[in-house]
Amino acid sequence: MAIRDNVTEQEVEKVKVDLALIHYPVLNKNQEVIGSAVTNLDLHDIARAARTYGIDSFYIVTPYKDQQELFQELLDHWLKGHGQKYNSDRGEALSLVQICDDLNQLFERVTKKWQKRPTVLATCARQKQSKIWPYPLVKQRISDGESFLILLGTAWGLTQEVIEAADGILPPISGPGNYNHLSVRAAAAIVLDRLLGREEV
Amino acid sequence: MAIRDNVTEQEVEKVKVDLALIHYPVLNKNQEVIGSAVTNLDLHDIARAARTYGIDSFYIVTPYKDQQELFQELLDHWLKGHGQKYNSDRGEALSLVQICDDLNQLFERVTKKWQKRPTVLATCARQKQSKIWPYPLVKQRISDGESFLILLGTAWGLTQEVIEAADGILPPISGPGNYNHLSVRAAAAIVLDRLLGREEV
Repeated sequence: MAIRDNVTEQEVEKVKVDLALIHYPVLNKNQEVIGSAVTNLDLHDIARAARTYGIDSFYIVTPYKDQQELFQELLDHWLKGHGQKYNSDRGEALSLVQICDDLNQLFERVTKKWQKRPTVLATCARQKQSKIWPYPLVKQRISDGESFLILLGTAWGLTQEVIEAADGILPPISGPGNYNHLSVRAAAAIVLDRLLGREEV
Repeated sequence: MAIRDNVTEQEVEKVKVDLALIHYPVLNKNQEVIGSAVTNLDLHDIARAARTYGIDSFYIVTPYKDQQELFQELLDHWLKGHGQKYNSDRGEALSLVQICDDLNQLFERVTKKWQKRPTVLATCARQKQSKIWPYPLVKQRISDGESFLILLGTAWGLTQEVIEAADGILPPISGPGNYNHLSVRAAAAIVLDRLLGREEV
């Protein structure tokens, strides 16, 4: 755990919630199934939000070995290299990141970790009719100690097949109109705040 | 306003709330006052969140003419150039962006627009003792039609002088621990959701 101001450790009470950012299978803008490129800033922004809200692990799911290697190098920079000295807070967030080949490997790992399969929730910007789990319900169940895995899609979102295979779907995030083109970085931050944010002053 | 699927306009009910992303004066990691570089992804992510939540304008405040020109080129790409054809949703979000030289020009513009000076709220990740305006209070006042300007800091945050000159400060966003190193993109999304998010299903 990182040391701040050479004095205090940054304490966090972790919850039994994992996030996974899926790069395959996802949709492109023509609704075709593709594999997307891993994005440096997704890794940083979502890891920082995950660390802020006490997430256990943040999984990057991509089958592409060259992308996995590239991201391992980036992680090493912040966890062990110059980045660790420059900004140890960043390393503390990125220490949550784990790389997985595919959804099967992801499910195996989290099932092994929690010694049972967690409840898997998909996220989707499109309005859905079935299997919606309201945020307050999930917040309560997290608070009760249930383990959850939340799937985030890159590009134009998770495929219908992945969404349907999940146990439930979190409601789409929307404002006063019908424009709902948030970045996955922004959507992840809002989902975590809704599920794990504390009541403020 | 952009046309989707060649059929429907994306309607949004705008609120009297503006966002401003400040690049000078802000702090560096040694708490010195600096001007930061404008970041492409701040522009995109925060504009998309602003558009989703019905924000009136998203101001980029930087005194550097070369940065202003660079960003005007980026905006033109998405508003008038190839980007507009490739993804008109992006242009719809970026149409909210306006570039300002400094805080004085920002205050003049929003005062002229609303025909009165809006209530100015600073954001800060550090715990503050005074002038905290709780999110539910601001949410209610927005709903009552009061105009607000929310200042977001880049780099290591707004200077103490800017924070103290604001009418109030929004509470820092924190999770279960004391790690609070969110990106400004994530913080902006969470602030907008807390102030303007709708109750979900």
